Order: sequence, then structure tokens, then C-alpha cells
Amino acid sequence: MEKKLEQKLVEFKEYIKTMEITKQAIDLIYWDKLVCMPKKAVEGRAEVIGLLSEQLFNQQTSKEMREFLDFFKENSDGLSQVDKAMIKRLDKEYNETKKIPVERYKEFVILTSKSEAAWEEAKDKNDFNIFKPYLSKVVNFQKEFVGYWGYKDHKYNTLLDKYEEGITVEVLDKVFGDLRDALVVLLNKIKNSKITINSDLLNSSYDKERQKELSLYALKLIGFDMEAGRLDESTHPFTTNFTNKDVRLTTHYYEHDLLSALFSTIHEGGHGIYEQNISDDLQNTWLSTGASMGIHESQSRFYENIIGRSEEFLRYLYPKFKELFKNFDKIDFNEFYKVVNKVEPSLIRTEADELTYSLHVIIRYEIEKALFNDEITVEELPEVWKKKYKEYLGVEPDTDSLGVLQDMHWSDGSFGYFPSYALGNLYGAQIFNTMKKDIPDVHELIAKGDIISITKWLKDNVHKYGSLYSPKELILKVTGEELNSQYFIDYLEEKYSKLYSI
Amino acid sequence: MEKKLEQKLVEFKEYIKTMEITKQAIDLIYWDKLVCMPKKAVEGRAEVIGLLSEQLFNQQTSKEMREFLDFFKENSDGLSQVDKAMIKRLDKEYNETKKIPVERYKEFVILTSKSEAAWEEAKDKNDFNIFKPYLSKVVNFQKEFVGYWGYKDHKYNTLLDKYEEGITVEVLDKVFGDLRDALVVLLNKIKNSKITINSDLLNSSYDKERQKELSLYALKLIGFDMEAGRLDESTHPFTTNFTNKDVRLTTHYYEHDLLSALFSTIHEGGHGIYEQNISDDLQNTWLSTGASMGIHESQSRFYENIIGRSEEFLRYLYPKFKELFKNFDKIDFNEFYKVVNKVEPSLIRTEADELTYSLHVIIRYEIEKALFNDEITVEELPEVWKKKYKEYLGVEPDTDSLGVLQDMHWSDGSFGYFPSYALGNLYGAQIFNTMKKDIPDVHELIAKGDIISITKWLKDNVHKYGSLYSPKELILKVTGEELNSQYFIDYLEEKYSKLYSI
Repeated sequence: MEKKLEQKLVEFKEYIKTMEITKQAIDLIYWDKLVCMPKKAVEGRAEVIGLLSEQLFNQQTSKEMREFLDFFKENSDGLSQVDKAMIKRLDKEYNETKKIPVERYKEFVILTSKSEAAWEEAKDKNDFNIFKPYLSKVVNFQKEFVGYWGYKDHKYNTLLDKYEEGITVEVLDKVFGDLRDALVVLLNKIKNSKITINSDLLNSSYDKERQKELSLYALKLIGFDMEAGRLDESTHPFTTNFTNKDVRLTTHYYEHDLLSALFSTIHEGGHGIYEQNISDDLQNTWLSTGASMGIHESQSRFYENIIGRSEEFLRYLYPKFKELFKNFDKIDFNEFYKVVNKVEPSLIRTEADELTYSLHVIIRYEIEKALFNDEITVEELPEVWKKKYKEYLGVEPDTDSLGVLQDMHWSDGSFGYFPSYALGNLYGAQIFNTMKKDIPDVHELIAKGDIISITKWLKDNVHKYGSLYSPKELILKVTGEELNSQYFIDYLEEKYSKLYSI
Repeated sequence: MEKKLEQKLVEFKEYIKTMEITKQAIDLIYWDKLVCMPKKAVEGRAEVIGLLSEQLFNQQTSKEMREFLDFFKENSDGLSQVDKAMIKRLDKEYNETKKIPVERYKEFVILTSKSEAAWEEAKDKNDFNIFKPYLSKVVNFQKEFVGYWGYKDHKYNTLLDKYEEGITVEVLDKVFGDLRDALVVLLNKIKNSKITINSDLLNSSYDKERQKELSLYALKLIGFDMEAGRLDESTHPFTTNFTNKDVRLTTHYYEHDLLSALFSTIHEGGHGIYEQNISDDLQNTWLSTGASMGIHESQSRFYENIIGRSEEFLRYLYPKFKELFKNFDKIDFNEFYKVVNKVEPSLIRTEADELTYSLHVIIRYEIEKALFNDEITVEELPEVWKKKYKEYLGVEPDTDSLGVLQDMHWSDGSFGYFPSYALGNLYGAQIFNTMKKDIPDVHELIAKGDIISITKWLKDNVHKYGSLYSPKELILKVTGEELNSQYFIDYLEEKYSKLYSI
């Protein structure tokens, strides 16, 4: 490498290090806000986060940054793969921000804070009309932004690309279409099955400290490193990573719901293991985090569902349940396994079971796409919502609070984000299919509690790369083919046919 | 106020707000390091703190800061008392930093990190010679710095002034001299007393969760607001304040020592109450923290000793001990009270009782003063140390680890800091004397557990002012007279005469 290029790279990585450190500070202060902060501190805390976020924004969009990026775009010979990926990613983020006129962006930020409050009020009062005018403005802003950014084929493609680079309407229409059709058929079969599952079996009071012990036991089992992380409590479970040496999970314990905290912990544990396993070499490259929201979700759902809700894993864990909770003396394992995997179409996405979950997401995808194609209006959202729930899930919300108002994502303009949740399921099953070729006895490994070997495979094939590859590139690299929903469909059909004898 | 002045003040306060926010971020990340951070994150964390500290340093010593300060020094008519104090304090800090050549300061920072490591090794290996060459260099650097800063009468005055503005060798020779002489006499009387106190009485194992309950109970009793603060655990107890709405204490629970955690908690609680009670008006003025280390220590020691170790308070708390710990069934209150206040000359400052503690500090003061007056050399420190311990406390360390190497303060050049610890005792007793004139029934208040009324008096007379006044000004304002050691001497004589029947 040329001397000048080398020197410039060192300088650039120092610059990025400063950005990463600022981001770590923001993330830590935000974590503290949700986990530790005393009640009365809430107001001042927003200012601290605001100031540091402004610093990071300035670092990301500075003249210096532009000069670095231009220099490397003109002098890319001799750059490594990592360097090129780093420059590509930072350039993309630079453009995403810089193409929007500052004044318009500021107006948008002010709008979203009002819009979030309006959404909250609308949900509380079950009145979509309170939220409607704000939502219309938010949608219009997003359309305006797409105008600045430009688009190919569909305006919505630009929004999808923000969260899942390379994923387009064309791709999603195919994979979500196939998945939706298969799920609707499967769901109907289950409805007509003679097997009924009674979840009252688990009704009991579960001591919090023992639930915590169970969560920590499960985390250890799947390979989360407690010397490079923590498990705390917060209202909504989440994961945050400062570096690969400091990854923090939260969960939430409910006295009368044993499964909620356990599967939340395993889900967040999946996110956390991904971050802990990212290669040290990617520090100070802006690539030392998961490849995308969808890939992240593939890992959390892999651990939560494919591993966590499998018969083998639950059977391995069963003695621990018996040890910790007296009522398990009277619970038969096979019944327990069925309760954990009970399918029941419901109104609320975040409470959905493994099978119906994707349908909730596909409904949102179809609505967002139509909205940005000007096929439906904000006004029509509640009705469209009800219709689709009836059609796909066979349930219909009586109120908008249980329907179109249930998620906060639209209130701050996060259109294009929902698909990641279902993409995670598809990626996960597709990766699992490849894993089984390398590790044919994977089910036996799970049965003997050796999840660490599976985690090692994921580290070597997925985790260590961080954001070096786009999700599209990564899936191709790992599985040898483009995104394909058949693996997830096959997985669900196999699992639920057995469970419901259909 | 002139329009231009007013506008400039608004800008300056915005600038200070940025500094305060940076400082909050640093303090929070440091707190997290000591309380939450997983083991493997230690290395990266230092860089985060380093970067933010550099930012704060740059903000404090920028050209912009200099221009603000010069402007207000030239246009001080119409400035409020708070504004003037704010400018004075920032100017002092600016000069303290700016007068040292950057290169020399950097060399000093590098030296102290080596010196701290050498001190640790020397203490471990009980070999002063390992530490000696570093300590000599650190002392020489401090003398050089005093040269840049200038001094009046004694070089050591400049160092004292850094920690306790307005306190000089002249002041300390008088108050510490009086205190030392009185303590030596009192200690000899106690040695010859017929009363012996057997602390084996408390030998037992104390459940951690119950100790925690006791600590939280005591904090509530003295008026620490748990909605604007927390209590956590760390190896060494400490207090940190981000704002008056978020003040965090730590303590350390020992299974076989019930008193350690309780009194650490009350001590830190005193620091914490002080910070919580600082007026909101002082936000964004750089004055919204305690007036000095000595005043801070006066509040922590007031709650720990004058309140916490008083007969009235312990009697009020006694049923709680009985409720929480079974072994208290067999412990007579009067015996318990004596054990809590047992006097026993010892070698280690941090483990000293209320009476002998100040002698440990005075020894350090006399040594530091002599060192900066060139009356003794670093070489001679171990011998001088032993001699003074023998003379004042009647005990002599066999090893340097138990003697001159016990504290880390000198390794990073914190000369002038030790006196604050004993000044806290003097300030505390002097303030208590004034309080008793306003609240004649203060002992009855303590007896009925109404510490909140006492805390309210302290808030109105001391806490709310933050750093608006220098310690010297504050003591004069609160008590109507200059620092005087007689109040503390009287307090000790009264308490211990009764306790030891002397």
C-alpha cells in the first residue's frame, strides 16, 4: 500500500474511533436511562443524550468526513475488503443524512416528537382520529425524503434499503407472498386439528429470583459470555452493545408467566451472542455491529425459537424447571412442550406465537407498500387493517387500540422497518438448513445441551463478519443462495404437523 | 442589565451547560465502570473516559472560554452574585490548567500512571524503595507546578488552595495544632480509663439482604431521596452526582462486619443529601456541586458520626437491628452503643475511630508541609512517619505497607488533599454548634428519629448554596465566625468523657 494511503487510513480510523466512542457513550447513557436512572432524573437525561447525539451527527457529516470519503473513493486501489466496506457504509450514511435539507429535517424531528405523543394519546383513548393528522404529515415527510434520496421502481424500496440493504419490493412480494399463502393454509389445518392444548397447565406463581436463575442458566447454555455482558431488568426487554466486550441484555419477569422472561432472555441472548462474536478486527471501522436489523432478528429468533422452543432443548432444560419450580412435579414433559408451542391467532403482534407472528408482519408490509404506492390513504388504514387481519388470521380487532394503533413504529416514521422482523425468521431457517449440512447431528447436540458447538458454527459463518457484508451478500455467502422462504415454511410444516397431528 | 451583557450571559450559560453535560457523561461512565461494567470491558472503557475528558478539558481551556471570561471581567457591573462566583471559579480553574506548559503536564500524567503502579507494587511487596524514585519525581513536579502558579508565604499554600480555597498553613497550624494537642491528652485519658469495651459482642454472620435493608432504612431516615438517587455496591464506597436529581451512592457489605456497610452508607448518604439539596438555580453555572472537599466531608461525617454514632440515633435504630438480626436479642443497647464508639489507636487511617481519625490526617498534613518546605526529603518519609505515629497515637508500624505506603494519594500528586478529611470534622462540629442555637431540641429530634428536620436546616443554611461560596466564606456565613477547632474538641470531650467515665 502506498505510504500516503496508509497514513490517511490510520488517520481515518482514529476519526472513526472517536465516532465509535461517542456512540458508546450515548448507548451507555441510554441503557442507564432504561435500567438504572432514578425517576426524577428523566428530564436532564434527554439533554445529555441530545448533546452527544448532536456531536455524533456532526462527526458523521463533517467536512472532514466528506474529505476522507472522497479521498478513498479516488484512491481505492490497495484498500482491503474491510476498508472498502467501511467506506461504502459511511458514505451511504453520509448521503442519507446530507441529502435532506437541514431545516426540513429539524421540522421532521419536531413533528415526530409530537406525533409520538399523539400516538400514545390515541392508543390510550382508542381514537385513531387523534393520531391521523400527525401520521399523515409523517407519511408526507417520508415521501418527501424519498424524493431527496431518489428511488428505483418503488418509493418504498428506498425505505426498505435503509434497514435491509438490497431488499426490495420485488424480493418481498415473492418471499412474503409464498410465506403468507403457506401460513394461511397451515393455520387452517391447525384450526381443524383434533389436538387442543390447554395452557392452564402452567398457571402458578413463579418466584422472581428463581426465574432469574433459570434465565442465567439458559444464557450460559447457549454461550452468552457473562464476563463480557450482563443481564438486567427493564420494562421492555432489549439488547445494547457498547463493544464486543460489553453487551447488555434486559428481560422482564412476570410473577404469573414463566415463559415470558425465559424466552425474552433467550431472544435477547441471541442478539447479544451475535454482538459478542464480532471479530476484534472490525473495531474502529464502523462495521463492528450486526449486518442489519433482519440478520440480527434472525439470530435472536434462531436461539429463541429454532433452538429454544425445540423439543430437544426443552427436554434438556426440563430437569432445571423441576429443580426450580415445585409445580413442575405434576407437569408432564409432552404437555409442557405443547403449551410452549401452542398456536393461537391473536390481535397483538408482540404476543404472537412462532407460527402466526410472520402474518402480523406481512400485514404491515402490505399496508406500508400500498401507502407509499398511493394505493391507500392514512384515512383508510383502520379498515384495511381489520380486513387483512380477518383474511389472514381469522381475527378482527374491535378497537383501533388493538388494531392499527398497537405499534409505535409509524409515529416516528420508521416505515420499512417492520419487514425485518419476518425476514429474521426466513434468514434463520435458511441458515439453519446450511448448518445442518455441516453439522448433521445438530439435533443430537441440542438434545445433549451442547448449544456452544452451534454457537461456534454461527460465530465462524455469520457473527464474526459484523457489518462487513450487506444482508443480501451475507445470506448468499453463508447459504450459497439468495433469500428463499421455503426453508422456513418447511421448518414450520414439519414442526407443527407433528405437534398438531395434521 | 445591559442588553449585550444579558445576551452574552445566555450564550455563556449555554456553553457551561455543554461542559456540565460532558462532565455528567464522564461521571456516569465512570460510575458504570465501578458498579456495572463486565470484566472484559475494562480496556476499552478507559479510552471512552479519556476521550470525553479531553473534550471537557478543551471546553474548559478554549479560546472561547478565555474570551467569555475576559468579557465578563471587563463588564462585571450588573452581574449577579451567582454570575460573579461562576466567573471567578471558572477563571481559577482556567488558570490552574493553562499556566502549566502542555508538554510538562503530559509528562506528569505519564509519570503518575507509572507512579501509581509503583506504589501498588511497593505496598504489595512492602518495599518503599520501589516507590521512592517515582515519588521524588512526583514531588518535584508539584514543586515545579507551584512555581508556575506562584505562591504566598508557603509553597504548600498553593496546593492547599486547590482543594480548600482560603485555607493556608497559617490557618491549619493553628486549628490542627490545637486539635492535635487536645486529642493526644484525651487519648491518654481514655487509655487510663477503667472502662474497657469488648467488641466481640457483635461477632456474628449478617445476611447481606438484611444489611441492605438496614442501609436503605437509614438512608430514608436521614432524608436521602431514593427517587433522585440510588444505592449500589462497589469495592470502595463512593458518591457520584450527575445532577441534583441523580445522585448515586455505593456501599460494601461484609458478612462478618455489620457496622462497616451501615456507616459507609450513612457517610455516603451525607455526601448525597448535600448534592441533592443544591438549588436548581445553580444548574449551568458550574457551581452546582459541593463547595469543597472539606465541606463535603463535613456533611458526610456529620451524618455518619455526629448523628449516626450518637446515642439518640442508635437507640432509635435499635429496634430495627433487633428486627433484622437475631443475635441482637442478646445484645444490651448500652453495650452496643459503646462498641460502635470504641476508641482504639491503630495504624490504618481508613479504619480509625471517630476520635483518633483526625490524628492520622494531621500527621499527613505535617509531613506534606515539611516536604514542600524542604525540611524533610522523600528518603526520610518512612522514619518521620513512624516517629509521628509513635508520638501522637502511641502505635508504630512494623512495616511501610502499614505505614507510609498505606494511602495512594501521594502517588498521583494529590498533595494538599489530606487536610480536607480533618477539616470536615471541624466544619461539621462548628456548624452543629450553630444549628443547636436555631434548633435547641436537636437531640430530642434525633431521639425521635426526625432527622429530616435537621436535614432541612442544613439544606437552607449550607447545601442549597452549592459552590456559590468558598469554604472560608461559607463557614463565616453559616456560623458567624472563622474556622475554629474548639467546637469539635468540645464535642469529642463531652462524648468520650461520658463514654469512658473520664
